[in-house]
Amino acid sequence: MNIALLGHGTVGRGVDEIITERVEGVDVTRILELPDRLSDPRMTASYDDIVGDPEIELVVECMGGLEPAHTFISAALAAGKSVVTSNKAVVAEHFGEFARQARTSGAALFIEATCAGGIPWIASIQKARRIDDVTSFSGIMNGTTNFIVDAMLREGADFDVILGRAQELGYAERDPSADIDGIDVRNKTLIAACVAFDVDCAREFPVTGIRTLTKAGLDLLSHHGRTAKLLGRGAQADGRYAVAVEPVALPKSSLEANVPANFNLVTLEGTTVGPLKFYGQGAGMLPTGNAIVQDVLDYMQGIRPSYDFSRDLAYDPALLSSDYLFMTTASVAASEPFDEGAVLVRDISAQRARALLGEALETDAASFMAAFPQEG
Amino acid sequence: MNIALLGHGTVGRGVDEIITERVEGVDVTRILELPDRLSDPRMTASYDDIVGDPEIELVVECMGGLEPAHTFISAALAAGKSVVTSNKAVVAEHFGEFARQARTSGAALFIEATCAGGIPWIASIQKARRIDDVTSFSGIMNGTTNFIVDAMLREGADFDVILGRAQELGYAERDPSADIDGIDVRNKTLIAACVAFDVDCAREFPVTGIRTLTKAGLDLLSHHGRTAKLLGRGAQADGRYAVAVEPVALPKSSLEANVPANFNLVTLEGTTVGPLKFYGQGAGMLPTGNAIVQDVLDYMQGIRPSYDFSRDLAYDPALLSSDYLFMTTASVAASEPFDEGAVLVRDISAQRARALLGEALETDAASFMAAFPQEG
Repeated sequence: MNIALLGHGTVGRGVDEIITERVEGVDVTRILELPDRLSDPRMTASYDDIVGDPEIELVVECMGGLEPAHTFISAALAAGKSVVTSNKAVVAEHFGEFARQARTSGAALFIEATCAGGIPWIASIQKARRIDDVTSFSGIMNGTTNFIVDAMLREGADFDVILGRAQELGYAERDPSADIDGIDVRNKTLIAACVAFDVDCAREFPVTGIRTLTKAGLDLLSHHGRTAKLLGRGAQADGRYAVAVEPVALPKSSLEANVPANFNLVTLEGTTVGPLKFYGQGAGMLPTGNAIVQDVLDYMQGIRPSYDFSRDLAYDPALLSSDYLFMTTASVAASEPFDEGAVLVRDISAQRARALLGEALETDAASFMAAFPQEG
Repeated sequence: MNIALLGHGTVGRGVDEIITERVEGVDVTRILELPDRLSDPRMTASYDDIVGDPEIELVVECMGGLEPAHTFISAALAAGKSVVTSNKAVVAEHFGEFARQARTSGAALFIEATCAGGIPWIASIQKARRIDDVTSFSGIMNGTTNFIVDAMLREGADFDVILGRAQELGYAERDPSADIDGIDVRNKTLIAACVAFDVDCAREFPVTGIRTLTKAGLDLLSHHGRTAKLLGRGAQADGRYAVAVEPVALPKSSLEANVPANFNLVTLEGTTVGPLKFYGQGAGMLPTGNAIVQDVLDYMQGIRPSYDFSRDLAYDPALLSSDYLFMTTASVAASEPFDEGAVLVRDISAQRARALLGEALETDAASFMAAFPQEG
């Protein structure tokens, strides 16, 4: 089978290497690259050479970004070519559109590599749904922020010090906003919700990152037997659903609290199977390449995932509610004292908590908030 | 599609319930039960009614035990009926024979439910192997012993107290040997090794349980930043492999050390995907029933796992080596002092360690041993 790669950066090279060394029956015959980077006879700068090639069945998009990825994926699906992509931004933005195009043309869209790198997360949600309702999911889905929190804890260092080191090591971008403000997790959470709840997930939901997390904040949580992790979460019940991205203060004995370095840990809760957790490398050339090649092999085995988002679920923020901790000098409505510089607000939704944080940030730009679920 | 259940105990009832309530297109038309338990019109005490029924495509065996399960599975496979089983004892004993019979008749053998309950563990090993070599695996695969260790730690109680409670709660059998002496984990480890390494795994390998674990032993480990967990493990390299079941002293910050109650956590290490860990309910009516029904659904989708054990790997105990801790009043060869009542032997194989424990038990029946891997 002939396939084409769109992009030959870190992920594209990983796919190329894995297929060449480990997979029989698949040939990467074309690679789309920029005009000044055509270093391989398979490379072309013209997408027409790929979408117009009848011998190419499958297009693997690993360019990233919204455009031209969106246009190229649409064109491939319209031409009846199936698409494998690792591009969470474009899938989060255009999932419903791609799914419709695929259904119309008979092609299929494969998205395992958009979330949690080498962890078979999308496939596991789909598999669980063959029998169960997925009543909730949550997860550490961003390696950069987990690396930062883990290193802050181990070294007793503050946020900026560790962020600087992560940037030097290549674990964080020069502009780290997508990671530390939760945008990356927001895209992955949206995609996971679409698959888990079979719904074209709302684009607007509460997103809070860890930009204002401090050593003092972690010390305070530690004193209460907890640590903070940035989680993407979703829940459904009784025809309603909610999603959110936010720091969560978890017991130190939880698996999540013990996830080291830049690893990911994702959880689903199924009706009969109960909780299932999956841990692994959430990014990187070979783990993400592995996820893409698994999708290519599924395609070869005749597997054709289909997304119709047929569930008519209502968005209801109240489904994600808990106590929330605020570390701020601002006054927070309906709060009670918790500890030095920290107050607690009981039983509010993630959406209400995000609004309260927004207000606090206007007074104190260093305000930090974390969900503080009751134990047990 | 018509299927038959062999046995209607906890697991069989779980399968029946899940299929009835949640799966379309599958009917449980026959159930094999003892003559004095025929409480349902589908039930029969005669296996001929099932193996001779041409409308039954698939037989789900959830009786447990070696006989008559072995005879019934063989007869079904010989008759060209595929078999789904949760019976780890019979698969561990007869895996090679069943695999040959299935290849000959064109039927298939499904074994997801033999290991780690609702966790998609066998499927995940098979999926990883589409691309990677599985270089090692390990796991907490027995909920009863994990419950005991977890409760001993949380309550500061001794082994017998917690074992008694586990028996009251139904988490442990009246004769707990299969769990606490590692026999159950031995069977699951053997099956996982067959699948992970594509080899008809050796029947004789080191197996040590936790029967002699004490509160004092856990306290000593805790003082050194560790806890003990009963692990099944396997490794392969350079055409060789080894397997073992034994307590392992793990850092308290490891995910394994934080697995609560009767949950399981299993790990594989793949060439390109790196480490993947899977956590969930390792037993129980609905989780194990879920694993069986997943196999039934795979069968319906045309998936036919095949095991040919074609890898000519040599068994080499040296592949599983580490430092070992012995808590005993007996003298242990080549040991060095470690702490009060405990000595360490550096860099020996699991097989050598098991032999040393055997010698120590002759002098001190309370001797305890745990692998003590170096950190990092």
